[in-house]
Amino acid sequence: MPQLVLIRHGQSAWNLENRFTGWWDVDVTEQGVAEARAAGELLKAKGFDFDLGFTSFQTRAIKTLNLVLEAMDSLWIPVTKDWRLNERHYGGLTGLNKAETVAKVGEEQVKIWRRSFDIPPPPIEAGTAFDLSKDRRYAGIAIPGTESLKDTIARVLPYWNSAIVPELKVGKRVVISAHGNSLRALVKHLSGISDEEIPTLEIPTGQPLVYELDAELNATDRYYLKDR
Amino acid sequence: MPQLVLIRHGQSAWNLENRFTGWWDVDVTEQGVAEARAAGELLKAKGFDFDLGFTSFQTRAIKTLNLVLEAMDSLWIPVTKDWRLNERHYGGLTGLNKAETVAKVGEEQVKIWRRSFDIPPPPIEAGTAFDLSKDRRYAGIAIPGTESLKDTIARVLPYWNSAIVPELKVGKRVVISAHGNSLRALVKHLSGISDEEIPTLEIPTGQPLVYELDAELNATDRYYLKDR
Repeated sequence: MPQLVLIRHGQSAWNLENRFTGWWDVDVTEQGVAEARAAGELLKAKGFDFDLGFTSFQTRAIKTLNLVLEAMDSLWIPVTKDWRLNERHYGGLTGLNKAETVAKVGEEQVKIWRRSFDIPPPPIEAGTAFDLSKDRRYAGIAIPGTESLKDTIARVLPYWNSAIVPELKVGKRVVISAHGNSLRALVKHLSGISDEEIPTLEIPTGQPLVYELDAELNATDRYYLKDR
Repeated sequence: MPQLVLIRHGQSAWNLENRFTGWWDVDVTEQGVAEARAAGELLKAKGFDFDLGFTSFQTRAIKTLNLVLEAMDSLWIPVTKDWRLNERHYGGLTGLNKAETVAKVGEEQVKIWRRSFDIPPPPIEAGTAFDLSKDRRYAGIAIPGTESLKDTIARVLPYWNSAIVPELKVGKRVVISAHGNSLRALVKHLSGISDEEIPTLEIPTGQPLVYELDAELNATDRYYLKDR
C-alpha cells in the first residue's frame, strides 16, 4: 500500500520574528533543527521507512527533510526538489513584520490577505530587497509576484498529480517536506476541505502528518504521528 | 565551459579510528562536518556555483555534499545518489582496525590489499556484523563481497560515462562528493595515472579538487582549491 507523510519545515528565523516569509529563503532556527531531528526519530521509532522524498526549492524545507532522513538512516533515498512545493508567495508583504503591517494597513486588511482564499497581497516590486526574480534557482521559471492560497494550490496540485501521484500509485512510501500553504493545498485536496475552512487550518512545524491511503489514493485516515 | 569539482567526504569516525570502512555506513566526525562546511565556504568565496551534484549511497559523502551546498546557498540544486560512487568494498577487512589486521596477517599482506591495484581482500562472510546484503538500500543491486581498486574503477567509470559525462558535455557545473577510492577511479581516468601509481595517490578529506576541462572533457588543469 502507498504511504504518505507530510512535514512542515521546522521553525524558521522568520516564524520566530513573525515576519511574512513566502519565497524568501530563511533558514531554520536551532529549535527548527531540533524539531526536524525529533520528527525523524519519531518516524524511525514508529517503524516508518520511505522510498522517496519531495521538497521545495527552499532551504528550510530541504534542511528539514535532510535532518528527518538522517535520523531515519535514509539520507540515501532519492529526493526531488521543485519550486511548485514552495511556500505561498507573499508578494509585497515579504519581509514585513506582521505587527508592523497591521500598524501600516490595519488589522482587517492583514487578516484578509492572510486568511482569505483567493485575495493576494499586492505584488512585490521588482528590484526591492526581497525580489527573487534574479535568483538563479528560479531561472526559466515564470515566478509569481504574489499569490493567494488559491494561486498556490493552482501550482501545487499539477505537481502533485504529475510527479507524486504516479509514485504513490505504484506503492511507494513518500515523504513531503514543505510549507504551511503548499501543505494546505495537499490537505485540502486529500481531505476535501472547503475554500472557507482551509485558510484557517494550522499545520504545526516539524510534526509528521500521516495520510493512510487506499490504492486509489483516497484518504482513509489522517493523523499527527505524535498523537498515536 | 563545463566545470568539475571532486570532494572526498570529511573525516569519518573510522578514518579517525583507522579502521577499514568500505561500504559500512560510518558518519562524519565533528571535524568532518567542519571540513565540509569550510569546503563550501571556500568554494563560495572563490565564486564557484554548481548546477548538479552527485554522491554515493553513503551517509558520510551525502552529508558532506549537503554541508557544502548549504554553505554555498545551493541546497536546492538537483543531487543524484548512486551506489556506484560508493567507497571500495573492503570485503572481510571491513570493520577491522588496521593495526589489528597487521598483527593478524602481517604488514606485508595488509600492504598488498591496501596498495595493490587488482588484488581484493577476502570477501565478507554473509551474516557477519558488517554484511550489507540485507540492507534495503542495496535491494536489487548485485553488491560485491569484496573489491580491488580495479574492481571499484570498473563500476565507477560506467556511471561516470552514462550519468555525469552527458551533463558536463552540455556545460553543466558539477560537484561530486565521494570516497578515497571512487575518486581515485575518476582521477586515474581524467589525469591518465598508471595502475602502479594510482593506489598511492592520497586525496585529502574535505578539500575541493578542481578539474579544468575542455569541451571534450580533457583535463587541462587539476588543483586543490586551497592552493590557489
